[in-house]
Amino acid sequence: MNLPANYQKTRQASVDMCAPLQIEDYIPQPALFTSPPKWNLGHTSWFFEEMILKKFIKNYKEFHPKYGYIFNSYYNTLGERVVRQNRGELSRPTVKEVYQYRSYVDDWMIGLLKTPIDDKLYKLIILGLNHEQQHQELFFTDIKYAFSKIPLYPVYSDLTYCENSEAHKEEFIEQDEGIYEVGFEGEGFCFDNELSRHKVYLQPYSIRNRLVTNGEFLEFMSDGGYQRFEFWHDEALFWLSENNIQQPMYWKNINDVWYQFTLAGLRKINPDHILTHITYYEAFAFASWKGLRLPTEFEWEAAAGKFSWGLRWEWTESAYLPYPGYKKDAGAVGEYNGKFMVNQKVLRGGSVVSPEGHTRKTYRNFFHPNMSWQFNGIRLAK
Amino acid sequence: MNLPANYQKTRQASVDMCAPLQIEDYIPQPALFTSPPKWNLGHTSWFFEEMILKKFIKNYKEFHPKYGYIFNSYYNTLGERVVRQNRGELSRPTVKEVYQYRSYVDDWMIGLLKTPIDDKLYKLIILGLNHEQQHQELFFTDIKYAFSKIPLYPVYSDLTYCENSEAHKEEFIEQDEGIYEVGFEGEGFCFDNELSRHKVYLQPYSIRNRLVTNGEFLEFMSDGGYQRFEFWHDEALFWLSENNIQQPMYWKNINDVWYQFTLAGLRKINPDHILTHITYYEAFAFASWKGLRLPTEFEWEAAAGKFSWGLRWEWTESAYLPYPGYKKDAGAVGEYNGKFMVNQKVLRGGSVVSPEGHTRKTYRNFFHPNMSWQFNGIRLAK
Amino acid sequence: MNLPANYQKTRQASVDMCAPLQIEDYIPQPALFTSPPKWNLGHTSWFFEEMILKKFIKNYKEFHPKYGYIFNSYYNTLGERVVRQNRGELSRPTVKEVYQYRSYVDDWMIGLLKTPIDDKLYKLIILGLNHEQQHQELFFTDIKYAFSKIPLYPVYSDLTYCENSEAHKEEFIEQDEGIYEVGFEGEGFCFDNELSRHKVYLQPYSIRNRLVTNGEFLEFMSDGGYQRFEFWHDEALFWLSENNIQQPMYWKNINDVWYQFTLAGLRKINPDHILTHITYYEAFAFASWKGLRLPTEFEWEAAAGKFSWGLRWEWTESAYLPYPGYKKDAGAVGEYNGKFMVNQKVLRGGSVVSPEGHTRKTYRNFFHPNMSWQFNGIRLAK
Amino acid sequence: MNLPANYQKTRQASVDMCAPLQIEDYIPQPALFTSPPKWNLGHTSWFFEEMILKKFIKNYKEFHPKYGYIFNSYYNTLGERVVRQNRGELSRPTVKEVYQYRSYVDDWMIGLLKTPIDDKLYKLIILGLNHEQQHQELFFTDIKYAFSKIPLYPVYSDLTYCENSEAHKEEFIEQDEGIYEVGFEGEGFCFDNELSRHKVYLQPYSIRNRLVTNGEFLEFMSDGGYQRFEFWHDEALFWLSENNIQQPMYWKNINDVWYQFTLAGLRKINPDHILTHITYYEAFAFASWKGLRLPTEFEWEAAAGKFSWGLRWEWTESAYLPYPGYKKDAGAVGEYNGKFMVNQKVLRGGSVVSPEGHTRKTYRNFFHPNMSWQFNGIRLAK
Repeated sequence: MNLPANYQKTRQASVDMCAPLQIEDYIPQPALFTSPPKWNLGHTSWFFEEMILKKFIKNYKEFHPKYGYIFNSYYNTLGERVVRQNRGELSRPTVKEVYQYRSYVDDWMIGLLKTPIDDKLYKLIILGLNHEQQHQELFFTDIKYAFSKIPLYPVYSDLTYCENSEAHKEEFIEQDEGIYEVGFEGEGFCFDNELSRHKVYLQPYSIRNRLVTNGEFLEFMSDGGYQRFEFWHDEALFWLSENNIQQPMYWKNINDVWYQFTLAGLRKINPDHILTHITYYEAFAFASWKGLRLPTEFEWEAAAGKFSWGLRWEWTESAYLPYPGYKKDAGAVGEYNGKFMVNQKVLRGGSVVSPEGHTRKTYRNFFHPNMSWQFNGIRLAK
Repeated sequence: MNLPANYQKTRQASVDMCAPLQIEDYIPQPALFTSPPKWNLGHTSWFFEEMILKKFIKNYKEFHPKYGYIFNSYYNTLGERVVRQNRGELSRPTVKEVYQYRSYVDDWMIGLLKTPIDDKLYKLIILGLNHEQQHQELFFTDIKYAFSKIPLYPVYSDLTYCENSEAHKEEFIEQDEGIYEVGFEGEGFCFDNELSRHKVYLQPYSIRNRLVTNGEFLEFMSDGGYQRFEFWHDEALFWLSENNIQQPMYWKNINDVWYQFTLAGLRKINPDHILTHITYYEAFAFASWKGLRLPTEFEWEAAAGKFSWGLRWEWTESAYLPYPGYKKDAGAVGEYNGKFMVNQKVLRGGSVVSPEGHTRKTYRNFFHPNMSWQFNGIRLAK
Repeated sequence: MNLPANYQKTRQASVDMCAPLQIEDYIPQPALFTSPPKWNLGHTSWFFEEMILKKFIKNYKEFHPKYGYIFNSYYNTLGERVVRQNRGELSRPTVKEVYQYRSYVDDWMIGLLKTPIDDKLYKLIILGLNHEQQHQELFFTDIKYAFSKIPLYPVYSDLTYCENSEAHKEEFIEQDEGIYEVGFEGEGFCFDNELSRHKVYLQPYSIRNRLVTNGEFLEFMSDGGYQRFEFWHDEALFWLSENNIQQPMYWKNINDVWYQFTLAGLRKINPDHILTHITYYEAFAFASWKGLRLPTEFEWEAAAGKFSWGLRWEWTESAYLPYPGYKKDAGAVGEYNGKFMVNQKVLRGGSVVSPEGHTRKTYRNFFHPNMSWQFNGIRLAK
Repeated sequence: MNLPANYQKTRQASVDMCAPLQIEDYIPQPALFTSPPKWNLGHTSWFFEEMILKKFIKNYKEFHPKYGYIFNSYYNTLGERVVRQNRGELSRPTVKEVYQYRSYVDDWMIGLLKTPIDDKLYKLIILGLNHEQQHQELFFTDIKYAFSKIPLYPVYSDLTYCENSEAHKEEFIEQDEGIYEVGFEGEGFCFDNELSRHKVYLQPYSIRNRLVTNGEFLEFMSDGGYQRFEFWHDEALFWLSENNIQQPMYWKNINDVWYQFTLAGLRKINPDHILTHITYYEAFAFASWKGLRLPTEFEWEAAAGKFSWGLRWEWTESAYLPYPGYKKDAGAVGEYNGKFMVNQKVLRGGSVVSPEGHTRKTYRNFFHPNMSWQFNGIRLAK
């Protein structure tokens, strides 16, 4: 697909997914780690305005002098911003004004796309589109979280596509000891954290062809998994006790029946469906209980051609660290990935709400080990 | 005015004051002590539904089984409820649905008002209307607070009626030593905390006929008032330092000019206007700096016929305590006032946003000493 | 007793009560509201050094340049100080050095007492001695609290004098309506907060001649007192739930038998003994459950001649506020009482660990309503 | 050295290093991450009592039934314990009693060492001694931290051996790309986290032969290093701002001269001395400022034969994770290392206060990235 078409398709997708929302739904931010839909819509537009329009179009006139302050997420290079936890306080600009902002930015961008695009600009536009796609995935997980906090349990959509299962039989894929190459190679887009491609030495291992199911996790729970300290990290025990955690994030036991909150409202848990919304702490404890472990990100990548993936972000045992020769870009774009490379865990694969074409086997997603509002799951290794 | 007309007028006022709002403005709750406009509208309706319709109409069918959970404020008698700090998370029910809820309750109430009303029911209806009026005042102070947090500084209304001044010359009114009677007497409505009427003995005192102005407070600030510990309570010093307080709540210094956020947006401070949005801590420190003090609530009440009031809630030195013979009502209504009678200060008078006819000289308003989002002011005594 | 003898007796008492301690016991500060014994010993000496020796003796040489920083409690007038919660971090100066500091200060003070003493100095010395006595009482309650936190439950002394009972039969003393005079009068010492003596008007009331016993409180507990919200203030309910309070501070249920930690170690509760270590919140809830109330401080004072008191500090319903005409002293001494006159409750009477001769019927003790490490008790009124 | 001699020498060292302490110094715990000297002495004895004496001696009688509760550090297998932050509250058992406890345990241990020792027991004893040595290092860093909080700046010892420098010239050691073996091999003792020995593939790199000096860090500071966000991780910026960090932990600027608190009291900073007490955040920011980076733990280990080390624990870029085939031991001993393998960083080398013979090139020390009370330093790589 050509760039203008790609641009318009990607931008339109962010708007389309808001169709089921009421105006009210654009506003709340029930947790620090989520953003209101309105903010996501503004922020992705601001990214193009700030990184591209202001830099590449001489006579560009910014839409509003305060939107930079309002829609900057975490770029220190670009100055002060609304503190992250206060995004839900902003009833203004209105939803309508934010859509006007999007149109304004789109008009300028489409104009720009008709001019000759040099390599540097091209890369920034592609980065902007990948950035937009990341926020599209966040949109689904944020609205799910927000709706889960409302006693009326609103339904985003009756399509329950997010709860799904794998048909094939469980099997462990054996992998030989030796040197493997990991990291991105080729022509297309990748984030800076996927580079440089380099060699790693892996010991012999095997990795399961299926993700863990709700049913398997229920066995862990029946076996006292949440109460048996020997399966957990020390700080996970603290997390369990501080937050009184006894089941996965969206699970609720009503009259001895397990339900989970989904984008289609509260639904009975299907034991054959793939487990999701799990923290790294829980993933690790579950694997320990099984007498198994999580794969490292390189074990995952080296075997990724041999099993199907993309239904859940899969926790790995790897910490999120720079690859050999990793180099942050200069300027604001350099804040995209590198400054988060401490105390986070790598997830691989992609999920049911990842935009089409957005994932690849070298993609490194990352979250703190206590985060579970993404569609995270567990793949086992040994 | 007859009861049905009174009911409709009071209920309509709550709706009218929302006219300048966008849908988005009904949602955020930027502080624990404020409530979203949507919640206020629902809660005041719930009060009638819960306290009256469910109890006095046999075949009453509640509007929605979960609204009790959502719109209960603090009545333990009436069961579980959304925790107070989470009111801003509720994008549902929608604004439209809440207005439908109001209409539904109003229809039943108007029906009920056409039937014979016994004394007990009459009192509850009047309580409900006074409750609604309290939330009308809260509406103004809550929306002002919410707008103040938005970088765009929205304007609620261009009418700057909330900033005002007193024309008469400063004077201290002398009061004799002796026995005075305080507390409500007469036929009309009062809250239980205004009873019983009783005698108090007052030492000779005098009280100022004017409220403190912005100009007077600017002198306090120029004289280092916020930095001079000797004027402040010990816990006020802690409050100042924890919150880095150096000026009244809504004041901002921009290029050496003092502005304040108002319902009409950001405005230059007029030194002749009456100071407002002041905490008890600041009121006390200011009075100490003047070599004066705040009046007690009884000094205020005993002299209230001799000066004009109603522009600001006036901090008194009195703690909020039960009057002799104070008796909580039975049931949920008994939770209205009594359970707050510790660690709060009494304010007297009324403010520019108090509903007409809602205040009287025996009215006891109360807030914690660090609260200033109401239109609070200072009257001096000696 | 003459002043030098009084001085030496009072100062010696602080040392004598440390006799049962090990060196180790002088150090820990297990809660913000307690102080280590070593700190108490240093602070009371510093009071004389700072307020008297440095001001009244020209060639006085301070014992150590940093002790002012270490042993100042809360006097802003006198500069920076070790923050209150860090007193338990100070292993130095050693206990021995602090005793040397005491001797040094005492030597100078005794010298000073041999010279002519003018009225101003006399008043400061008497204030210093009363201050020392207050810390003597704090010593007992602080060490009790500290020992209660140690799994070995150390015994301070086998003498169980702190647990005691009243022999006389329960009776309510009736008091007439009318004008009463309250506040200190006469020649001796009083704190500034007991002045000025003034008239108050009291409604008819009656007050119980006995304090509440453990047995009475056990009935409240058996009747679900801690779980029944209708007896509690709103913020008390928050306090109960945040701290998971289900019994008085030092009570422990071991195999269905109630024990309490005492200065003589863990002891079975005697239902005839006077209830102690109770918060205002609990005192209020208990009184509500009884259908009674706490007396105001003036009701207490007006009737104090008609019942025996001094075994427990008795919570009153009164907030700690200035009396009419209250005037803080100039200088550091002015920080003694006035700056605490907000959000605290008055207690009257005295306790089993109050130094002999230190209490009187006009004495106003004050604590926040959630504090119970003093020997606080309950007297009922109606 | 034979085992009994080794045992006695190691145990005695813990006692010897307490020689400069006053009784008072054994008590305070000024931070969650430090332990009082008394607790360290008790805990290391408890380790032998709990892991060995109770298990290997049939008729062993524990010294005191509550010491297990008091001196357990973090072993869930072994039941409840005093919460970590409350160790400074324990004035009892006294210092003398803890020394009696040590003697008691030593007597039994020495008896046991005279009997035949099987392999399992031998390994536990060696583990106990290595555990004791770890606490010996903690003793020095804990007492340094505790003394640093006392306004009198006590001196532990006048020997300033902890501040030192390296004579050799700066140089970068080049290392070839290829497969290296890492992890412990051989006969002696190692911790479970050093196993299994395995192959890793390293890209070409070079590593500095000298640690970073105070002088080099002063240049970073002069260049605005603490204020320039581009060198820091995102969560490091939060840490800097929350704690108002502008220099290394023990540095103080007095009249424009830089001092640091040392075990020999407050001393002027010598720019030639090796920088110490640095967090990972600071180490990373410093390296970024230099245009360099920290080595990974495997880069460090592979080159460790080519430079001298053991003066500072050297932060690596590696997260603390299990080696391939890592297996926790069964029982309480299994809690030693594995449960901490999340959100921590590996340090390599050893420090001036590491016990002789306790370090080796495969040793993996680990701390959270914001910790700096150990003698941590920086080695650069590229």
